[in-house]
Amino acid sequence: MELNFRSDNESPAAAQIMDALAAANTGTAWAYAEDHLSSKLDQAFSALFDTDVSVIPVSTGTVANSIALASCTPAWGSVYCSGSAHILNDESGAPEFYGNGLRLVAVDGIDGKYNAQDLNTLVRQNEGHGVHSYQPTAISLTQSTEAGTVYTPDEIGSISEVARNLNLAIHMDGARFANAVCHLGCTPAETSWQAGVQMLSFGASKNGCLGAEALLYFNQPEKREHAERLRKRGGHLLSKMRYVSAQLLAYIEGDLWLTLASQANRQAAAFAAAIKQHPSARLEFPVEANEVFLNWHADGFTHLADQGIQFLNWPGRDDLARFVFSHCTSDEETRILCTTLGAQE
Amino acid sequence: MELNFRSDNESPAAAQIMDALAAANTGTAWAYAEDHLSSKLDQAFSALFDTDVSVIPVSTGTVANSIALASCTPAWGSVYCSGSAHILNDESGAPEFYGNGLRLVAVDGIDGKYNAQDLNTLVRQNEGHGVHSYQPTAISLTQSTEAGTVYTPDEIGSISEVARNLNLAIHMDGARFANAVCHLGCTPAETSWQAGVQMLSFGASKNGCLGAEALLYFNQPEKREHAERLRKRGGHLLSKMRYVSAQLLAYIEGDLWLTLASQANRQAAAFAAAIKQHPSARLEFPVEANEVFLNWHADGFTHLADQGIQFLNWPGRDDLARFVFSHCTSDEETRILCTTLGAQE
Amino acid sequence: MELNFRSDNESPAAAQIMDALAAANTGTAWAYAEDHLSSKLDQAFSALFDTDVSVIPVSTGTVANSIALASCTPAWGSVYCSGSAHILNDESGAPEFYGNGLRLVAVDGIDGKYNAQDLNTLVRQNEGHGVHSYQPTAISLTQSTEAGTVYTPDEIGSISEVARNLNLAIHMDGARFANAVCHLGCTPAETSWQAGVQMLSFGASKNGCLGAEALLYFNQPEKREHAERLRKRGGHLLSKMRYVSAQLLAYIEGDLWLTLASQANRQAAAFAAAIKQHPSARLEFPVEANEVFLNWHADGFTHLADQGIQFLNWPGRDDLARFVFSHCTSDEETRILCTTLGAQE
Amino acid sequence: MELNFRSDNESPAAAQIMDALAAANTGTAWAYAEDHLSSKLDQAFSALFDTDVSVIPVSTGTVANSIALASCTPAWGSVYCSGSAHILNDESGAPEFYGNGLRLVAVDGIDGKYNAQDLNTLVRQNEGHGVHSYQPTAISLTQSTEAGTVYTPDEIGSISEVARNLNLAIHMDGARFANAVCHLGCTPAETSWQAGVQMLSFGASKNGCLGAEALLYFNQPEKREHAERLRKRGGHLLSKMRYVSAQLLAYIEGDLWLTLASQANRQAAAFAAAIKQHPSARLEFPVEANEVFLNWHADGFTHLADQGIQFLNWPGRDDLARFVFSHCTSDEETRILCTTLGAQE
Repeated sequence: MELNFRSDNESPAAAQIMDALAAANTGTAWAYAEDHLSSKLDQAFSALFDTDVSVIPVSTGTVANSIALASCTPAWGSVYCSGSAHILNDESGAPEFYGNGLRLVAVDGIDGKYNAQDLNTLVRQNEGHGVHSYQPTAISLTQSTEAGTVYTPDEIGSISEVARNLNLAIHMDGARFANAVCHLGCTPAETSWQAGVQMLSFGASKNGCLGAEALLYFNQPEKREHAERLRKRGGHLLSKMRYVSAQLLAYIEGDLWLTLASQANRQAAAFAAAIKQHPSARLEFPVEANEVFLNWHADGFTHLADQGIQFLNWPGRDDLARFVFSHCTSDEETRILCTTLGAQE
Repeated sequence: MELNFRSDNESPAAAQIMDALAAANTGTAWAYAEDHLSSKLDQAFSALFDTDVSVIPVSTGTVANSIALASCTPAWGSVYCSGSAHILNDESGAPEFYGNGLRLVAVDGIDGKYNAQDLNTLVRQNEGHGVHSYQPTAISLTQSTEAGTVYTPDEIGSISEVARNLNLAIHMDGARFANAVCHLGCTPAETSWQAGVQMLSFGASKNGCLGAEALLYFNQPEKREHAERLRKRGGHLLSKMRYVSAQLLAYIEGDLWLTLASQANRQAAAFAAAIKQHPSARLEFPVEANEVFLNWHADGFTHLADQGIQFLNWPGRDDLARFVFSHCTSDEETRILCTTLGAQE
Repeated sequence: MELNFRSDNESPAAAQIMDALAAANTGTAWAYAEDHLSSKLDQAFSALFDTDVSVIPVSTGTVANSIALASCTPAWGSVYCSGSAHILNDESGAPEFYGNGLRLVAVDGIDGKYNAQDLNTLVRQNEGHGVHSYQPTAISLTQSTEAGTVYTPDEIGSISEVARNLNLAIHMDGARFANAVCHLGCTPAETSWQAGVQMLSFGASKNGCLGAEALLYFNQPEKREHAERLRKRGGHLLSKMRYVSAQLLAYIEGDLWLTLASQANRQAAAFAAAIKQHPSARLEFPVEANEVFLNWHADGFTHLADQGIQFLNWPGRDDLARFVFSHCTSDEETRILCTTLGAQE
Repeated sequence: MELNFRSDNESPAAAQIMDALAAANTGTAWAYAEDHLSSKLDQAFSALFDTDVSVIPVSTGTVANSIALASCTPAWGSVYCSGSAHILNDESGAPEFYGNGLRLVAVDGIDGKYNAQDLNTLVRQNEGHGVHSYQPTAISLTQSTEAGTVYTPDEIGSISEVARNLNLAIHMDGARFANAVCHLGCTPAETSWQAGVQMLSFGASKNGCLGAEALLYFNQPEKREHAERLRKRGGHLLSKMRYVSAQLLAYIEGDLWLTLASQANRQAAAFAAAIKQHPSARLEFPVEANEVFLNWHADGFTHLADQGIQFLNWPGRDDLARFVFSHCTSDEETRILCTTLGAQE
């Protein structure tokens, strides 16, 4: 029993992914993403998303995000994102590095999301200063968000419409895209390109893989070269890319990715339900994916920790903690968590 | 039977490495290189090299090289290397990218190696122009070289002495370090830090791993932070680093790395012997590691290819081809290669 | 009669500066800042500031700021500044360019200034995330501010103390440093290094020069090389630097810089007095230097413009306009401005 | 009497340029290159070159070159130039800085020039390695060259044809363009855009200005924005650009630039004639512009220096020195130089 709710990044890989690695490990294969598995990616993801997809396999979400943004933003361009976005707070300037000094600009919002109108107002306010200031050139949405909430296709569509009118490229950081799709019950297409998204960082590492992410360009095959050049210069063109591609193919095969994510979401929902019934605990944000932000008193958190439960005390907030559920969180683990919560008023 | 002598990058992973991955895949582990395996790296490599080693695990040799050079060279600094170096010809400017526009300078040499005196002459010639030109700040040696040759510890020591006198940092690109150590029959220490090397890109991917390299700093623990910052900004801090570290630990456990490399070297030596006895074929470079450069007539290469043997026709040279042997090249495969060679005059 | 209150950047050069250029234009002089005038800068500014000063002459305030920040901040470092700072809003990412992707972070404040406590709170909040986020490494203060206000030496001292405790380098953007010193009636030392400032972008272009700024390092001679390297790579090492240095020397000779600035400040004060007596106009910020922000009704601004008065309508605010007074604004011009204001209720 | 033949960078400004500065110094003018003088540049240079020219005024040749190259070369692109090029040897990586790590590649040649065939051979040799190596994207020619020689329009045309076939952009570093045009006796158009040149760094600082260069784009108005963005981020958008533009306008007014350059060339020719008649001295390169490279014995150079003559001992060569003549070198100064040379066998 792990009782580790610190992060889905700490979960192991799924058995099917390990099997795929073993299956890929037979004989020689062309290097540098020219192998038989990597060459299947475009077709597999095009089928999954029901449109033309150019796939750039990489090892981390950070580089997927950074290549995506750098491929659509000049050094003097700015990217608008949520104030809680991973690209803004947790990547130590990787987008700025790959983008040669581009700037990220935070849009205020609630529950980890920003809306179309606030985006429009802020961008318009920052325009019109010519060469003297950054030129707004792109937006990034996080799906599911860092608050564990999920944008609806309609919300994304509204934001995309604003972005298109402002001539901004549209990127989605889908580190937890699987969890969002599970929640929405929609097709992956509906919450991505059909809602206006042009580039998607399709996450897999947090949800059952060892280290595999796919940067997807929808209906923009001409973007591939720029992305591949950035990947190479970033040192991300693995000689044995087959092992990344094998993970990605197994991950979407037979909707494994959704099976894994739904397990995680279900646990989060169970814990959210327990919180709602608790006399003093409350939810900081709606629980729509696999993360739960618990607003509670400090003694409560101490009690949970004393019982061996691992979670993340939110920096600078002694009344807030984050619990993340993964594909390998068991019903039993969640049951113990709920029970331990309930034992403390 | 593969008969694939194109590149060791095309070889699969060794069974022991796959086993280590499976063993690492149990339960949760702290993310971002704070796991129980990653935290063993310093001790394991310090033992292997018999000195204090700071280990930065990464996924590619390109990023290991780039971080190493960027961590010792300002943007206005230059790095001296062989004209055949991978960092110069095959990394598409990754060192320049991580080093914010640093410059690589080729030193002429023979058989893929440069010597102390030519280095000294060239650097002295490029000095003394103040802010108007790049400041020489580092050197990089490739061990084994891109020509399949190996620097002796004495050769490295002489070059290091020159470099120290010129106040240049000393890096070794050890993508095929294992093959060099096997050839030399020395300790890893003797051909690295004891010969003056300060930073080593310790390769593992080509020799049995899936995607794992270790950037090593010898007796410079203060360099770690800079390297870790660059790794993060480059998008190379894997959330599930345990899987890289597991490969590295298994790779050096019980000298597996040397066992694997010696299998490769032995095949290369067998092919070299066959060439030496051949009436028209000859060796372009001495064969000291796992690469053989065959100088022959074009018809001969066509004949080999027609027999299903895969190798690399050297760009721009119809009289030259490269054959690389890996940990998984079997005696039988090499025997067929030699026989096929011998069948054509 | 110009009636141009748009910006001090639009003013011509002072006669003494033109004379100095002519005087410098005799015979040959060593190039690249090794001339007889450039070599006097350190001594002249050391005398002016009564301490050891290393002077880096350049042509623009933007590059002075950018070199200063890049010389004390790694690519993964962040610089804290006012939300209205020129480096943040008006330099199109020059600091990010010279700093290889460093990040600027806005501190909230009032009247163009931020205070020590808010700085401390924000930096502490952003610390502690290790390699995952930017490391706070520097602050920048604008003196006088973009709101036309002036930090007192005590205010600077308090901020510097916080910065030192947080291990942050301390930069001052002194594009209008002369106007601030005039207002304070202190020595230049008192509002710079004696209050903790380590680097000062000492502006001259807006206040009587053609194109000359001096980046000053106080008591840090070891910083010179880094700064000079950045200047060269930025293309800012003029071959005929004598003409920049001649401007700077003439500018501080006999306190010309203060004479010029006091003329500008006096005009601003006169306009501020007129506003205070006006029935509907009011000051948006205290007037402490040479800029006046007039909060008024739109009809009033239309009236002023109709009378041939040039000023800057503040972007996005129809109730706000900026009037800047320069060394060449005459009493008569200001009188007409005040009269025209008074003629409209 | 100066007897300073060290560099034309050490010459003062011409009287007409100083007059133009004074004339520009009347009243206020819009800032940031939106003034009445800067806005005349396109028309003036379009007339001079007899085609559509977009002018980017800047203060140094280094930044003109760097912006030109960065505006046509991605970070993974390479620029081919002479091994003696200023961009390669004397700009400390400014092109690499503006170009985010682009690479310069030297083409061998004689007398400071390379030819079409060698360019073609080298580029073809470096192509075809996909994302693994830099992509050739531009060439740069120096006119006149660093050896004091001049490309003929035919030579430029041949090189341009090769470049166009290789899809390479064509830049000319014209730091001494005036001297080349004087030598050729052609129109400026004939040795630039009519011969295939797309971007020209039109030098003025060395030939009579204080600090003024014009980056010219021929028939590519769409390049302006990129260049202006780079100029701003480089800190090169002077607030009082009128003073740079005033220099440039006066420089080309009434062919002043050619009058000044012909004075310099004439002096160089006189010294070259003296060398040709000398028993032991000889010319290292043909003298076609304003630079003379004298190959002589060390005692001879010592003798010249002892007589108060200043010149540049070539680094690493005790048998070579450079003498540069400028617009302000008098006939008398040159006569003394020739006489002093003749007095020593």
